[in-house]
Amino acid sequence: MEKLKNDLFLRACLRKPVERTPVWMMRQAGRYLPEYRAVRAKADFLTMCKTPELAAEVTIQPIDLIGTDAAIIFSDILVIPEAMGMTLEMHEGKGPIFPSPIRDENAAKNLKLITPEEDLGYVLDAIKLTKKELDGRVPLIGFSGAPWTLLTYMVEGRGSKNFAEVKKLIYNNPNLAHDLLKKISDAVAEYLNAQIDAGANAVQIFDTWGGILTPRDFRKFSLDYISDIVGKIKRPDIPVIVFAKGVHYKIENIAKTGCDVLGLDWTMSLKKVRKEVGDHCALQGNLDPTTLYADHEEIRKRVKQVLKSYGKGSGHIFNLGHGILPDVPPANAKAMVEFVKEESVKYHIQDID
Amino acid sequence: MEKLKNDLFLRACLRKPVERTPVWMMRQAGRYLPEYRAVRAKADFLTMCKTPELAAEVTIQPIDLIGTDAAIIFSDILVIPEAMGMTLEMHEGKGPIFPSPIRDENAAKNLKLITPEEDLGYVLDAIKLTKKELDGRVPLIGFSGAPWTLLTYMVEGRGSKNFAEVKKLIYNNPNLAHDLLKKISDAVAEYLNAQIDAGANAVQIFDTWGGILTPRDFRKFSLDYISDIVGKIKRPDIPVIVFAKGVHYKIENIAKTGCDVLGLDWTMSLKKVRKEVGDHCALQGNLDPTTLYADHEEIRKRVKQVLKSYGKGSGHIFNLGHGILPDVPPANAKAMVEFVKEESVKYHIQDID
Repeated sequence: MEKLKNDLFLRACLRKPVERTPVWMMRQAGRYLPEYRAVRAKADFLTMCKTPELAAEVTIQPIDLIGTDAAIIFSDILVIPEAMGMTLEMHEGKGPIFPSPIRDENAAKNLKLITPEEDLGYVLDAIKLTKKELDGRVPLIGFSGAPWTLLTYMVEGRGSKNFAEVKKLIYNNPNLAHDLLKKISDAVAEYLNAQIDAGANAVQIFDTWGGILTPRDFRKFSLDYISDIVGKIKRPDIPVIVFAKGVHYKIENIAKTGCDVLGLDWTMSLKKVRKEVGDHCALQGNLDPTTLYADHEEIRKRVKQVLKSYGKGSGHIFNLGHGILPDVPPANAKAMVEFVKEESVKYHIQDID
Repeated sequence: MEKLKNDLFLRACLRKPVERTPVWMMRQAGRYLPEYRAVRAKADFLTMCKTPELAAEVTIQPIDLIGTDAAIIFSDILVIPEAMGMTLEMHEGKGPIFPSPIRDENAAKNLKLITPEEDLGYVLDAIKLTKKELDGRVPLIGFSGAPWTLLTYMVEGRGSKNFAEVKKLIYNNPNLAHDLLKKISDAVAEYLNAQIDAGANAVQIFDTWGGILTPRDFRKFSLDYISDIVGKIKRPDIPVIVFAKGVHYKIENIAKTGCDVLGLDWTMSLKKVRKEVGDHCALQGNLDPTTLYADHEEIRKRVKQVLKSYGKGSGHIFNLGHGILPDVPPANAKAMVEFVKEESVKYHIQDID
């Protein structure tokens, strides 16, 4: 097995003893870093995703510049719908757009099954190259969108406020919704397994839009498919993280999917969730991302509150409750990472006794 | 005391026996109604708010057209910041804008104390006129934004995705935030009492943006001020509804403010919340507003699920989990109201035994 110089993240995912709490940030390879923007100035977003050298470069930047304990491969959740045959456009300032969203059986028929090695080989190449360049310094996380979140984008076609189209689909044509979710789930499972084969040390499933559903709809249209995917991950030694933003109501059920780590947004109480599911899962989170607009004293205070909320012992991966915001000063992100490293030691003294 | 022909809503708010579950919809006087759009074609939004005849006309429309069991005065939560001296602009399609948002002590100093009778007399006149024209058919609900939600708009100046500016304020200048919240709370309390004096039969406090806060910040920057306001409502016979969208974590604490009714969004379980706070509060909600895009069979099914989740006995006011969406067919809203009336009878048979 691969020898990592820093495997705190992986040990915490599996709730094994650690000397301190590991920390990384969602979207840590991103616009808040001037070094990222310098790469981005030379290539558009999708070109960066599809050029392993560029993807590897920005993936590693936060390890060098911010000091996080894990890297996450630079990519986008929408590469799957694109690989399934949808035209994906990235519009500056407006976010991603599918000009021909899926609204009926006919459009759904045109979606093709994917072979990750052929259709998403550029991600796998980026993972391989990143692993080589990381040279065992920290683990590398692979990821995918959850089927529900991918379906939402594929049906809405663009950012949405009320998610009218995807809701119409589940109300008025639930069979088509389930057919699509099944097809997407198969793609996601194959894709995550391929990322693991390429060298990913852990994988995260992002259900960014799970929280727009009622508890009942979340179970039917999201959770069942996440469960299915987690069950299909072939390597039991590779931690699976599920992050369902805004989903506060089925926490114990998400834990029962068999995932190793639950990602939590900043409206959740680590303390409360740990009581509910701490025997099943590690927890990841959950500093409000806007905290990084605060001064360093306030950041430290709030880092301490998050650490205290989880409490003593392993099983906590420090993270933001959602992606880092693009206008955050890098010095504040770096300060947060340092504060976690300093302040978390006392919560783990008994781990190594 | 005033004699109402239909007082189901008020009885349910106070958890007194009812023959069936009362129903109304947030934003029921709104753009989904062609009759509303006809009025709106003749006057801009703020002119409608400030012209009692027009406000009364659209307030009453859903009573006649949709058959709801309560009216809510047509107005906007941002009339308070405007009355305090801020310039408010309504931009078609972009929502409300404060061109000079509050960011520092200097700007805060310019906010004036309000006298509702002078500064918001047009709302009070609209309430009086609506009451006269309703002629006791159904109760009339008054409302205000919660201090935190008003502060959010006053600081951001416009719609926001990450609420960077108001978060910076609470992190980096909490004293100024509290000074502003105190000032706004005083205005809200006076305003609600004036609405009650003008004839409002109940009042609702909307905390639309409470859910962007961590549980700790919600308590400090929102809940304490809501509590303060509820304590200042002078008429114990007038029900107070608190609707804090997205706030799933301090439900029992919201109940402890002394409010009579808790409004819930569609991610909450009525059953679970009733178990937690049913001895203190009635519950209002919580059909996913997008349900009204579904066909009538699906709407009926989901109405039944909401009714069943609350269960038997009084203390439930049926509502959407947020405002009705502007592109909903009025026939679907009307069907929902009818389904509530039909399907809820069996949950109240023991009430009148």
